[in-house]
Amino acid sequence: MPKAWEGRFTGKPDVRAEAFTSSLAFDRRLAVQDVTGSIAHARMLARSGVIGRQEGELIVAGLERIREELADGTFPFRREAEDIHLNIEKRLVELIGPVGGKLHTARSRNDQVALDLHLYLRETTDEVREAIRRLQRALFRRAAEELESGTILPGYTHLQQAQPVLLAHHLLAYFWMLDRDWERFRQVDDSCDRSPLGAAALAGTSFPVDPVWTAGELGFSRLYENSVDAVSDRDFACEFLFGCALLGAHLSRLAEELVIWSTREFGFIRFADAYATGSSIMPQKKNPDTAELVRGKTGRLYGNLLGLLTVLKGLPLAYGSDLQEDKEKVFDSADTVLACLDVAEGICSTLEFRRERMREMVDETSLVTDLADHLASKGVPFREAHAMVGKLVRWCEEEGRRLSSLTTAELGEFSIHLDQEAVALLDPAAVVARRRSPGGTAPGRVAEELTRARKCLMV
Amino acid sequence: MPKAWEGRFTGKPDVRAEAFTSSLAFDRRLAVQDVTGSIAHARMLARSGVIGRQEGELIVAGLERIREELADGTFPFRREAEDIHLNIEKRLVELIGPVGGKLHTARSRNDQVALDLHLYLRETTDEVREAIRRLQRALFRRAAEELESGTILPGYTHLQQAQPVLLAHHLLAYFWMLDRDWERFRQVDDSCDRSPLGAAALAGTSFPVDPVWTAGELGFSRLYENSVDAVSDRDFACEFLFGCALLGAHLSRLAEELVIWSTREFGFIRFADAYATGSSIMPQKKNPDTAELVRGKTGRLYGNLLGLLTVLKGLPLAYGSDLQEDKEKVFDSADTVLACLDVAEGICSTLEFRRERMREMVDETSLVTDLADHLASKGVPFREAHAMVGKLVRWCEEEGRRLSSLTTAELGEFSIHLDQEAVALLDPAAVVARRRSPGGTAPGRVAEELTRARKCLMV
Amino acid sequence: MPKAWEGRFTGKPDVRAEAFTSSLAFDRRLAVQDVTGSIAHARMLARSGVIGRQEGELIVAGLERIREELADGTFPFRREAEDIHLNIEKRLVELIGPVGGKLHTARSRNDQVALDLHLYLRETTDEVREAIRRLQRALFRRAAEELESGTILPGYTHLQQAQPVLLAHHLLAYFWMLDRDWERFRQVDDSCDRSPLGAAALAGTSFPVDPVWTAGELGFSRLYENSVDAVSDRDFACEFLFGCALLGAHLSRLAEELVIWSTREFGFIRFADAYATGSSIMPQKKNPDTAELVRGKTGRLYGNLLGLLTVLKGLPLAYGSDLQEDKEKVFDSADTVLACLDVAEGICSTLEFRRERMREMVDETSLVTDLADHLASKGVPFREAHAMVGKLVRWCEEEGRRLSSLTTAELGEFSIHLDQEAVALLDPAAVVARRRSPGGTAPGRVAEELTRARKCLMV
Amino acid sequence: MPKAWEGRFTGKPDVRAEAFTSSLAFDRRLAVQDVTGSIAHARMLARSGVIGRQEGELIVAGLERIREELADGTFPFRREAEDIHLNIEKRLVELIGPVGGKLHTARSRNDQVALDLHLYLRETTDEVREAIRRLQRALFRRAAEELESGTILPGYTHLQQAQPVLLAHHLLAYFWMLDRDWERFRQVDDSCDRSPLGAAALAGTSFPVDPVWTAGELGFSRLYENSVDAVSDRDFACEFLFGCALLGAHLSRLAEELVIWSTREFGFIRFADAYATGSSIMPQKKNPDTAELVRGKTGRLYGNLLGLLTVLKGLPLAYGSDLQEDKEKVFDSADTVLACLDVAEGICSTLEFRRERMREMVDETSLVTDLADHLASKGVPFREAHAMVGKLVRWCEEEGRRLSSLTTAELGEFSIHLDQEAVALLDPAAVVARRRSPGGTAPGRVAEELTRARKCLMV
Repeated sequence: MPKAWEGRFTGKPDVRAEAFTSSLAFDRRLAVQDVTGSIAHARMLARSGVIGRQEGELIVAGLERIREELADGTFPFRREAEDIHLNIEKRLVELIGPVGGKLHTARSRNDQVALDLHLYLRETTDEVREAIRRLQRALFRRAAEELESGTILPGYTHLQQAQPVLLAHHLLAYFWMLDRDWERFRQVDDSCDRSPLGAAALAGTSFPVDPVWTAGELGFSRLYENSVDAVSDRDFACEFLFGCALLGAHLSRLAEELVIWSTREFGFIRFADAYATGSSIMPQKKNPDTAELVRGKTGRLYGNLLGLLTVLKGLPLAYGSDLQEDKEKVFDSADTVLACLDVAEGICSTLEFRRERMREMVDETSLVTDLADHLASKGVPFREAHAMVGKLVRWCEEEGRRLSSLTTAELGEFSIHLDQEAVALLDPAAVVARRRSPGGTAPGRVAEELTRARKCLMV
Repeated sequence: MPKAWEGRFTGKPDVRAEAFTSSLAFDRRLAVQDVTGSIAHARMLARSGVIGRQEGELIVAGLERIREELADGTFPFRREAEDIHLNIEKRLVELIGPVGGKLHTARSRNDQVALDLHLYLRETTDEVREAIRRLQRALFRRAAEELESGTILPGYTHLQQAQPVLLAHHLLAYFWMLDRDWERFRQVDDSCDRSPLGAAALAGTSFPVDPVWTAGELGFSRLYENSVDAVSDRDFACEFLFGCALLGAHLSRLAEELVIWSTREFGFIRFADAYATGSSIMPQKKNPDTAELVRGKTGRLYGNLLGLLTVLKGLPLAYGSDLQEDKEKVFDSADTVLACLDVAEGICSTLEFRRERMREMVDETSLVTDLADHLASKGVPFREAHAMVGKLVRWCEEEGRRLSSLTTAELGEFSIHLDQEAVALLDPAAVVARRRSPGGTAPGRVAEELTRARKCLMV
Repeated sequence: MPKAWEGRFTGKPDVRAEAFTSSLAFDRRLAVQDVTGSIAHARMLARSGVIGRQEGELIVAGLERIREELADGTFPFRREAEDIHLNIEKRLVELIGPVGGKLHTARSRNDQVALDLHLYLRETTDEVREAIRRLQRALFRRAAEELESGTILPGYTHLQQAQPVLLAHHLLAYFWMLDRDWERFRQVDDSCDRSPLGAAALAGTSFPVDPVWTAGELGFSRLYENSVDAVSDRDFACEFLFGCALLGAHLSRLAEELVIWSTREFGFIRFADAYATGSSIMPQKKNPDTAELVRGKTGRLYGNLLGLLTVLKGLPLAYGSDLQEDKEKVFDSADTVLACLDVAEGICSTLEFRRERMREMVDETSLVTDLADHLASKGVPFREAHAMVGKLVRWCEEEGRRLSSLTTAELGEFSIHLDQEAVALLDPAAVVARRRSPGGTAPGRVAEELTRARKCLMV
Repeated sequence: MPKAWEGRFTGKPDVRAEAFTSSLAFDRRLAVQDVTGSIAHARMLARSGVIGRQEGELIVAGLERIREELADGTFPFRREAEDIHLNIEKRLVELIGPVGGKLHTARSRNDQVALDLHLYLRETTDEVREAIRRLQRALFRRAAEELESGTILPGYTHLQQAQPVLLAHHLLAYFWMLDRDWERFRQVDDSCDRSPLGAAALAGTSFPVDPVWTAGELGFSRLYENSVDAVSDRDFACEFLFGCALLGAHLSRLAEELVIWSTREFGFIRFADAYATGSSIMPQKKNPDTAELVRGKTGRLYGNLLGLLTVLKGLPLAYGSDLQEDKEKVFDSADTVLACLDVAEGICSTLEFRRERMREMVDETSLVTDLADHLASKGVPFREAHAMVGKLVRWCEEEGRRLSSLTTAELGEFSIHLDQEAVALLDPAAVVARRRSPGGTAPGRVAEELTRARKCLMV
């Protein structure tokens, strides 16, 4: 098959080189966006008088036909035609004759592929944002139920019990992380909202085009200010990959917690059978491998981000073929986060919280911050109060005593302000209830949080 | 020196462990932010009645004194005091007595260090944005001069001459890249605009604090919604590191071009002596090593981003000491981009454009897109026009002929539409002038671009 | 289809979860290795009396049949069977009945998949090493030709002309880089030479197996010392990915130089038409996009390495599903380096060196190190000699004079040791010939280098 | 202060540019290596007659004096002298007069800095290997003790209990990982065993030098084959950074397990007070933050590796200033792994294993693989045996029964081969003892492992 640019060449492409440079295997995913962009471009060319009105109609009809072929799977992809753009153009010429060759007037593949990727990412960020919302909704529902149930579990820092928290509060921590992700993808979408069409190869075009019209037709609110920038910019793709990487980091934290919580030793949750797998050798096993995969897939999200940044490092303007490497990374990260969000939503919606177990596992010593606070409120400088209670904890540990079993006399040896009344503070529910600062874990505060969360979900 | 938490411990810290966990060597850079945050916290505690009014005043006075010590270099840093927070607290107690211990009421180092990093990054994103603006201004000035001079140079794709462009236009491509960076750091600043104070260790505090007041006092417009999230979130730091990485990618592209342009073979620019260095062995050398370093430093910017993402991967909530690793990466990326922007500004402001050389180097064949466009405007489908001109170029190359030397007869063999008039189109200035599409390189368009660029600089 | 482990489960897998955890889409590439490993395992089980001799023969025959089905494309892959291991096992049971279920005796998928990856990587490192050798051979041939032709080109540091070198010498620099890669993959192969079989799930097996025999049968010279390590180790895969990344870095440096050399401005080489492509809009373009893609693909090689390192970070022993993410990275890096090596070999074998142009582009000033050396050999401390010659170069530049045009009197003003004889040293061929230190660019030294290079190729 | 290369320059360096390009702040760490290399170089120059014998002695004496100044801290570092090489050279001239300027004969900073880094890394890989051995020794000691104690703990896959293992066996898994690291750094050292001296700027030198002698004097067994490669190669540094990254991955896995094991919920170990820290707010806390930091520092190790790979991507030959960015990454990774190994050794040597707790936590169901194996040994195809036992486990779970409490009749309903004798197999010690395959967890096998481990330690 003749190349689109063979005029200047005498030698034939090497088979290996052809396979190496062909991008069809992956850029076929942009087929629909390419047709959409071309239809708008053809209409603009006709409106602007660059091509004839009838020529324009013929081209648009041909492209509509191709859109159908793509939809019903009959489009004849040909690897030797290098990429999706030339595949579609060649098919167009087959369908409508040489006039199809006029479609590429005032356009280069440089601005064309940039356009396709912008269009793809605008749609995809929408999908990702919806998938984030679904996971947020699942977390919201579970949090609402657990606020109702009043379930308390140990809160951890350094994976050591720190202070008890409401399960609802802990779940909402992920809600807000995801809300930042949602907002971040909104910004990515905003970055994608710039049409590169009209930049042609790198310098703009001499045809009297109207790229503002085309942009509007395609739903863009802005053009690039500079044609050289328009064809060499991949910031928007980097931002998308970064958004995916950070989202992946969040999901990996959630996944890690679910894996730890589902151990026999913690025993806080049970995965639904639908989201666990067994072992080929150990009959008793029920493995949280959906969560592990969510965690493990962070690797590819980070790798894709770093991969594209590496491509861009030291790349001269304007377009270079290196940029062809952007697409597989973008597709892979998009597929990955969509699948991970989906599965995370499934896990969270179906797992069982073992409420009693959570409550039982709250260790008495994780309540003693309130003893120190109590002493501080009696006027003991906090640092001294802290040291005093630390000694008390150590003494109990050494003596094998429980705090709640200490006599007033024993307590008094540590501080005159430590009495039975102080020890009575050490009830998990009471400890939780006292953390009434804004954003704190007290039930009233968590109820407020839920209200705000609900508002987010309505946007 | 006694530890802030030694009450519960019997064994002494190991010397190696102490050195390993001490963060003072780097978190001392947060000293001023820490004092600022503590002053606001102390005032709030007094306003809310958590501590006495006089106690509050005493603490604030002590902290002001520490601020002066920091400013005049007399503050006694002590590594054995673990970190900057405890260094300052211990100094406070030295200065004002045990009442200093009340400062840490209703606060944990978990929310405190998060606050300090938020404050640091808000200041630093401002600095980075100003430095970006300075580089944009330098590019703007050079572009304005070169629009005036009308300098044309070859425009490249694949580092092969593609179509000529105005030097002003090429320079502005970087202006707009940087403008996206500027805007991105604005978003980073927005992400940093959330006060974590009040979250305490992870669950909130039982003291009747007023974190909304403290936040306002410190210039924040929002609180975190959730205390667990508040102490475990490092999204804002990741965003900063990503902003630096992408900015670094841009600067590396600029640096690469400057290195290539300054070769003897291209010869487009001369570095000012002030921004070049020589060789210890080759007397003739004048090396663009400032630009090379700007390019090379991209490595550390990428590395810092990946580093923090790695830290976050699979980290359970809420706080873990792993997060201590955030700071050096942030400081290093901040220092790096500030230095790179500064040096890039210096390079761009002082380099010499060799205008004549640029113009001379525009190759005749880089003008032939206009021949194909011309044929297309005569009704030849663009694909055919392209092939025809490609053959013409090949023929000239094989025959060693220049396009401008061809006779009408010779031209006519390729197409009846190719005549002397067509060849007359092949003047670089004319080619540039015809690229009048929005964002294109025609002088009028570039003048518009400059106008818009000026508006950006006024923000 | 029933799961291999469904005994313990009541709920059905979720469709999304099943798709998410299924690895068949990529681990089918390990099908042949899986069969090979299973045949050896089955033989061992029979030899050791764990299964009957006839059972063993039946199983081996079934596996041989599967091997044929894989070869002729008739093997029925089924995604719902999770992974390649279970696909093969289920097919085996279909073919030979329930006795096929005995194959998995004394084995777990944990050691099985580790085995498959070891086998795959042993074969693949061989392929990569052969492909490296092919590229080395191409470089060797071109270097030998160019040593013959005596072609000299400017040698660069900082992309500024430094000192002239033989083209043969420059090409051989890549030869030696690649030789290190070749050796590095030998070490990777050595790291892969450890059989994990016998580790079973993580603890070893209670069956009287003989993993030493199986290992020998499969060409391994060692076992893992520890069963827990055997199933959780992915060092060998990381080493492979690192080898690919560093090889990619080398190829990116070569590609960058080819891109720069093929510019009109340098003009040192011409790409064969077979390894260049044109533009869809600019008829004159001949783009080195094979080289650009080689350069750009470095991004994915780095990304894959970082991706797997990220997966391993903080992963508890022994096996976790996160490790399933190893394979796609390994396959992608393997495919990428094989393709890049292949294409680089094609580029290097077919490109045209423009010898005259290279020689002409050697700038006079790149020869002056020899003036400084000359002065040093006359007893002038090198630092002074360097400064003196530096001034001379600057003076010529300012006056627009060529060194070779200076009179004895003019030279004498810079140093009494600078006379016409000294200036006569400034012949590129002579400058090159004088660099006779071992490893230097003098023709005799390069001839020695070629001899040593030939020896490497014979290994 | 005059620059070493100012002859050719007229303008003064910009203050910012000077600060930006100065490497003294970090390359001063190479001072000793630089002096060592220079002494060998000076001796060679004298031996070869390039400089006079007396000149050589004078220079060597001056360098020895500088070595002392460096050792006692009196060496006058000057940032304006760019880098450590020029700092030392200038000091030499101060000490011995202009003859000091002869030291740089037949050498460039390009080969000089490469030499210094080779020397540094040869020493540092030795240190790292010793530190690895120390940690291996600690693990060996603890494993030997715990083999003696016969301590059994749950073995995990997917962090779910899989099969019990000996604690000694689990500890040795890390021993072998580290052994691969030790071997890997031996290969790094081998890669560093190549002297770049004699390459000069990039092309070799015209002086009659004897780099083979110099190399031998400095402990190298090989030279680079090619001068261009010699100054542009940083493979050895990448290999070092990769070795550190993979070692970091291993340490992060160990650290993760220690963090999990030290939770109240697992309760398998207690950190020594010396390796734990407390909380500034929660008096009861004892945090494993040394282990968390070991885990977190993996981020910077990965970042440094990626950083240098990024620097190398697309860098033309021979030397570029970008390569200056190699050093800080190397130093930081070296410091980090040395500190992490040291601290990990301290943690492992001092932590307390809670043997009773480990044993108690072994869940009955983690023993049932042996039931399936038992059935398989009776002729039931393993897949059927597996399913049968899986149903048994589920039934027990649903009925709230313990396996050991089932009657013969109840068991018989699942399989005729399941009787009390079969259930008697379900003793953790017996289960462990049966895993006698090579590398398995049976005490005899672990004793063999220890013997082999001891042999490694003797190397």
